Amino acid sequence: MSAVTGKLIGVGVGPGDPDLVTLKAMRTLGAAEVVAFFAKAGNSSHARTIAAPHLHAGIVELTLNYPVTTELPRSSAAYCDALAAFYDSAAEKIETYLKDGRGVVVLCEGDPLFYGSYMHLHARLAARFPAEIVAGVSGMSGCWSAAGMPIAQGDDVFTVLPATLPEAELVRRLADADAAVVMKVGRHLPKLRRALACSGRLHRAIYVERGTMADAKMLPLADKPDDEAPYFAVVLVPGWEQRP
Amino acid sequence: MSAVTGKLIGVGVGPGDPDLVTLKAMRTLGAAEVVAFFAKAGNSSHARTIAAPHLHAGIVELTLNYPVTTELPRSSAAYCDALAAFYDSAAEKIETYLKDGRGVVVLCEGDPLFYGSYMHLHARLAARFPAEIVAGVSGMSGCWSAAGMPIAQGDDVFTVLPATLPEAELVRRLADADAAVVMKVGRHLPKLRRALACSGRLHRAIYVERGTMADAKMLPLADKPDDEAPYFAVVLVPGWEQRP
Repeated sequence: MSAVTGKLIGVGVGPGDPDLVTLKAMRTLGAAEVVAFFAKAGNSSHARTIAAPHLHAGIVELTLNYPVTTELPRSSAAYCDALAAFYDSAAEKIETYLKDGRGVVVLCEGDPLFYGSYMHLHARLAARFPAEIVAGVSGMSGCWSAAGMPIAQGDDVFTVLPATLPEAELVRRLADADAAVVMKVGRHLPKLRRALACSGRLHRAIYVERGTMADAKMLPLADKPDDEAPYFAVVLVPGWEQRP
Repeated sequence: MSAVTGKLIGVGVGPGDPDLVTLKAMRTLGAAEVVAFFAKAGNSSHARTIAAPHLHAGIVELTLNYPVTTELPRSSAAYCDALAAFYDSAAEKIETYLKDGRGVVVLCEGDPLFYGSYMHLHARLAARFPAEIVAGVSGMSGCWSAAGMPIAQGDDVFTVLPATLPEAELVRRLADADAAVVMKVGRHLPKLRRALACSGRLHRAIYVERGTMADAKMLPLADKPDDEAPYFAVVLVPGWEQRP
């Protein structure tokens, strides 16, 4: 073990558009010795794709493949245990480099500390090793910017909700906020549509898929059929009314 | 009037650290013909300071000085009227350039469409002129990143609240969210502290001043006296508990 430990750096690479990487992220990526990123087995990492132009040749890459847990209900203890074991093991792999005096940059879509997997590594390592966060443009900010949709202003109450909530809970929370973003829409779209209608927000709701990608899709939710929505689709409910 | 109108571009320059400007913002600033920014009379513009290294010499600068409204209560109709007239006049100044075929870049701290003055210009101009938004790292993201504080994960409900809300309303909304950011703390700090205590969130609350500036100040709210807090101070209430 080296006398000097390496630094853990969580780097937000933004919502998808490679130009929404910050100067700090670009410099941090360019200086990285070891780069780690999460990926679903068999899929490439989106964050890795965004970061690629800034990584030097010969960098050490550490792919952290999520375990396959499709057979486990997400609310089950077995699912939580499988994920916890996965994050433990991922943190141990990174720890090996840190103890060896080598810095590790973890690539994060959007912002590292806002709904991202990096937090699980940070929580396991940041108390024992030097750690730094490079803030990024969040995925939802990419979405409302691409839509040209002012989202919240002044004294608005803004809230982020997962579409996984029960319908009555969605109704209550949507009615209680001036502005909202609903994440993880996927198969919850019909329920979310009912909740938006019931809370009087359906006419304002904008459906967004692949927010800042070249093939982004955005339209009033009222014009979007319930047929199919990806897990990562979001619905924006702007609070904006022109005031003053 | 030129046959081709100019484009309105709202550019997020991030939370303060000049390295948290995006590549897209940097390029847009470098190509700008006319740059507009809001400022309080007698104060310099923070967004202008962040953008300065990227602006070319000889750029046309349009300072939009907020009217002095200290004598008007913020909830009064007179205050709203004064601000509306100010935004109308600012939009008219920009419109003159756009009609002349010149693009106008509006500098925005943080993200343009998330609690920023730019929205008032966007709402007045974007339907009649080509408009584009360059998303930025939000001020609150800069704060929780500087604090190294995971803020929300998984199915957390996250909410942004203004400290101007009545105390009972703050208690109710803080208790109802997994994670929260409270903005505009200023003179509302004692009330906010009571509301955090009453909602069982005080032990988690982090007080942040000048989040991503060199002279940032952040400490557990429990250790911060009620004596003095600037208007733009925020309080972070992380939802993070290590799970799974």
